[in-house]
Amino acid sequence: MNITLKKISEKFNVEFIGDGSYEINNVSSIANANENSIIFLSDKNFLKFLDETKSKTVVTTKELSKFCKNNIIVCDNPYLLFAKISQLINKQDKLIYKIHSSVVSYTNDLNKEILIEPNVVIGKNVTIGEKSFIGTNCYIGDNVKISSGAKLFQNVTIYSNVTIGSNVIIHSGTVIGSDGFGYAKENNSWIKIPQIGGVKIGNNVEIGSNTSIDRGALDNTIIGDGVKIDNQVQIAHNVQIGENTAIAGCVGIAGSAKIGKNCSIGGGAGIQGHIEICDNTQITGMSKVSSNIKKAGVYSSGTPLMLNKEWLKNAARFKKLNELFLKYKK
Amino acid sequence: MNITLKKISEKFNVEFIGDGSYEINNVSSIANANENSIIFLSDKNFLKFLDETKSKTVVTTKELSKFCKNNIIVCDNPYLLFAKISQLINKQDKLIYKIHSSVVSYTNDLNKEILIEPNVVIGKNVTIGEKSFIGTNCYIGDNVKISSGAKLFQNVTIYSNVTIGSNVIIHSGTVIGSDGFGYAKENNSWIKIPQIGGVKIGNNVEIGSNTSIDRGALDNTIIGDGVKIDNQVQIAHNVQIGENTAIAGCVGIAGSAKIGKNCSIGGGAGIQGHIEICDNTQITGMSKVSSNIKKAGVYSSGTPLMLNKEWLKNAARFKKLNELFLKYKK
Amino acid sequence: MNITLKKISEKFNVEFIGDGSYEINNVSSIANANENSIIFLSDKNFLKFLDETKSKTVVTTKELSKFCKNNIIVCDNPYLLFAKISQLINKQDKLIYKIHSSVVSYTNDLNKEILIEPNVVIGKNVTIGEKSFIGTNCYIGDNVKISSGAKLFQNVTIYSNVTIGSNVIIHSGTVIGSDGFGYAKENNSWIKIPQIGGVKIGNNVEIGSNTSIDRGALDNTIIGDGVKIDNQVQIAHNVQIGENTAIAGCVGIAGSAKIGKNCSIGGGAGIQGHIEICDNTQITGMSKVSSNIKKAGVYSSGTPLMLNKEWLKNAARFKKLNELFLKYKK
Repeated sequence: MNITLKKISEKFNVEFIGDGSYEINNVSSIANANENSIIFLSDKNFLKFLDETKSKTVVTTKELSKFCKNNIIVCDNPYLLFAKISQLINKQDKLIYKIHSSVVSYTNDLNKEILIEPNVVIGKNVTIGEKSFIGTNCYIGDNVKISSGAKLFQNVTIYSNVTIGSNVIIHSGTVIGSDGFGYAKENNSWIKIPQIGGVKIGNNVEIGSNTSIDRGALDNTIIGDGVKIDNQVQIAHNVQIGENTAIAGCVGIAGSAKIGKNCSIGGGAGIQGHIEICDNTQITGMSKVSSNIKKAGVYSSGTPLMLNKEWLKNAARFKKLNELFLKYKK
Repeated sequence: MNITLKKISEKFNVEFIGDGSYEINNVSSIANANENSIIFLSDKNFLKFLDETKSKTVVTTKELSKFCKNNIIVCDNPYLLFAKISQLINKQDKLIYKIHSSVVSYTNDLNKEILIEPNVVIGKNVTIGEKSFIGTNCYIGDNVKISSGAKLFQNVTIYSNVTIGSNVIIHSGTVIGSDGFGYAKENNSWIKIPQIGGVKIGNNVEIGSNTSIDRGALDNTIIGDGVKIDNQVQIAHNVQIGENTAIAGCVGIAGSAKIGKNCSIGGGAGIQGHIEICDNTQITGMSKVSSNIKKAGVYSSGTPLMLNKEWLKNAARFKKLNELFLKYKK
Repeated sequence: MNITLKKISEKFNVEFIGDGSYEINNVSSIANANENSIIFLSDKNFLKFLDETKSKTVVTTKELSKFCKNNIIVCDNPYLLFAKISQLINKQDKLIYKIHSSVVSYTNDLNKEILIEPNVVIGKNVTIGEKSFIGTNCYIGDNVKISSGAKLFQNVTIYSNVTIGSNVIIHSGTVIGSDGFGYAKENNSWIKIPQIGGVKIGNNVEIGSNTSIDRGALDNTIIGDGVKIDNQVQIAHNVQIGENTAIAGCVGIAGSAKIGKNCSIGGGAGIQGHIEICDNTQITGMSKVSSNIKKAGVYSSGTPLMLNKEWLKNAARFKKLNELFLKYKK
């Protein structure tokens, strides 16, 4: 798709400097651009690379625009505008609605306006909204409700009684609705507690690859509208995640934790069970959250990286920290 | 399924207070109960919610029973009894034995009393015990032995030469028997060590979704009877896990680690290779175990969460901890 | 396969002591060996087990050879030689080239010298090199290029536009090419940035089970030749990993991080986005890398394990570490 600078300017209501008839047809990194690429620049430190790019068109801020040449699109948030231009240029192919002949469906009256790839198996009493895509080898359990515009990549597993909102994207290998880790102890052995809750996923949620979201023990596990979840994330039973919260890769969230809206959980962080985290909280990567957070802010735990031989000494002192403190007090 | 209080009382040999002919037909959380729900109460802090529940029947302790009204089932361990009542009420549908026509099996004489869903592929010389369920898109490799009552959810992969005990549950996306991470270094490159051991999984084991259990390098990886493993867990080659140990989500256990019986490993914890952990040990979440544990107890590592701006200062001091200590000594 | 000591000695150009006509037919651990097993010994601490082994043939160093009896193969690196002998003895079955009748391929002219198991789906314009194996239920997206000698175990998902070098092994449940976690914020909601880069995987790479490697946002995610990646690893968009680097289980590498050659990243470590790590760096398990590493060495973070009751006290002091330090300075 080719589009002129002028058209972009009009569509997104932003100013431009340069040749309005200039056509771009791809978005690119600065390094790998060609003459018809559009690039973005929101960080002064990347200015030095501008000389070497083949791109003739940059999206940038007013402030940085004075260092740029050729065609410039000026806006407040170049990254955001770049995202929108990219969506426009990389518009997804229109789905050709078809249910592949190998699909096994125990629901007879599936929507006709969906694309289902080979080897998908669909349980009883399933609904899938129009304009949805279900990739090869997905499994959709009984009583699953999926709204319109869903995109389930290949090899996704949805257990029974899961509800999925509109425009949800789920990447390969992800499992929604597996049993929560719930047992009662009897002497030394474990008695399984039937996990009879479901999972309720809001609208505009995206879930990465190889992530697990467990069904609730009694009530539902709930993922709010607009939540973004990365790869390799573990979300235990009865977790609740507020709207537009973003959860990076390898995060683990234990049972019944309740995370607010607009939070950001850094990669590899762990959230203890039954914890509440208030709206607008930011947890840095690999932090461990083991008590409630009642005030928005940026939170961290852990220790910094150092040479192992120094770390060994400091770590040994950490083991005696309380002792040292008591001595010092005296 | 409807069941009277009296029947429950008789079946589990517990006392009740109230109307023995009262029927319940579901287990529920306090919040979402209806009139025929049974709920449980084992924590004083939840007493305040009792006024608002629609449930007329609670399982609780003798101590807490005096704060309850309507129908009360009195027992020592309400959570355990609740689990058992839930199992009774949510009894699983009896399997209708069938091997779907799309199943490809290189073993001819499969047990007739099993249910195999579509698109399952089964290797040579496989045995699957009666009353087993194999979900859609599972792959069962050559020479795998699965005892009776297995439940493999959809998209499970079992490599060749894996042995699985009776009444084992494995959730979707889990991989059993992948090659261990074993290489010898030659100059700068890695020479693969063929992973020719197997995996031996005991009876009554449950394994969550998207978990990996590697086959042994030479001998077997061994998961003891009654072990419960959550989602997103990594169990490396030649690990041995003792009976009834519970391993929460996102735990990583490196090669040849040996974990005792009745241990509990908190979410996100990491166990170094070749470590031994004795029976009845408890590791808290996100702890790192890098030496043997010879005495049962509760063990932890890490630092507590704090505001990032405070953390930065404390973390900087941690880097100098040994130095500080040496100064102080003088 | 049976092979004599003499043949081994000749093939690998190493010395032996004992009966050159003695035949071995399997590699084994010391404990489970039989008379025809070959075992290895590179650690003095295992000498004590030699008395009880049934093996008559050991691969060891010159130094340790004096404590061994029967047949001895003497070399500098017993583990490496053992790996090579194991590869020789456990030679993989020759593939019988066949594309199963259930395979759905949108590419018509697939190589004839490949083995594709049931229920595999292959997109348009795919190439797969000779002597490759594609396991049951794999999905290979459009425009994927796989060189010769690939081994994709069952249930692997390869998104479109991924390039895979020769002799690459990918274990089950692994996903290559899922979208990176890229969004721009607009007010409180997230705007998806189309992930239009690909993934480029070099030669002789092995990737464990249930690992995720995201496609690049604009340019490619790059995995160098000879890289070994374990299970449950998360590799985000635009990460670059240098040749022969080894990444243990549960590691998370955030977007655009660049890791050098011959590095070793311990299990559960986390690498922050946009970080650069120089060649030959070693990161110990569960460490958090949040700034560039410019000098090769062994690096660590975290705190050691201790009894929880002691940890609680020390951890509380850590929260006041800066305060304590400032007091002390006075």
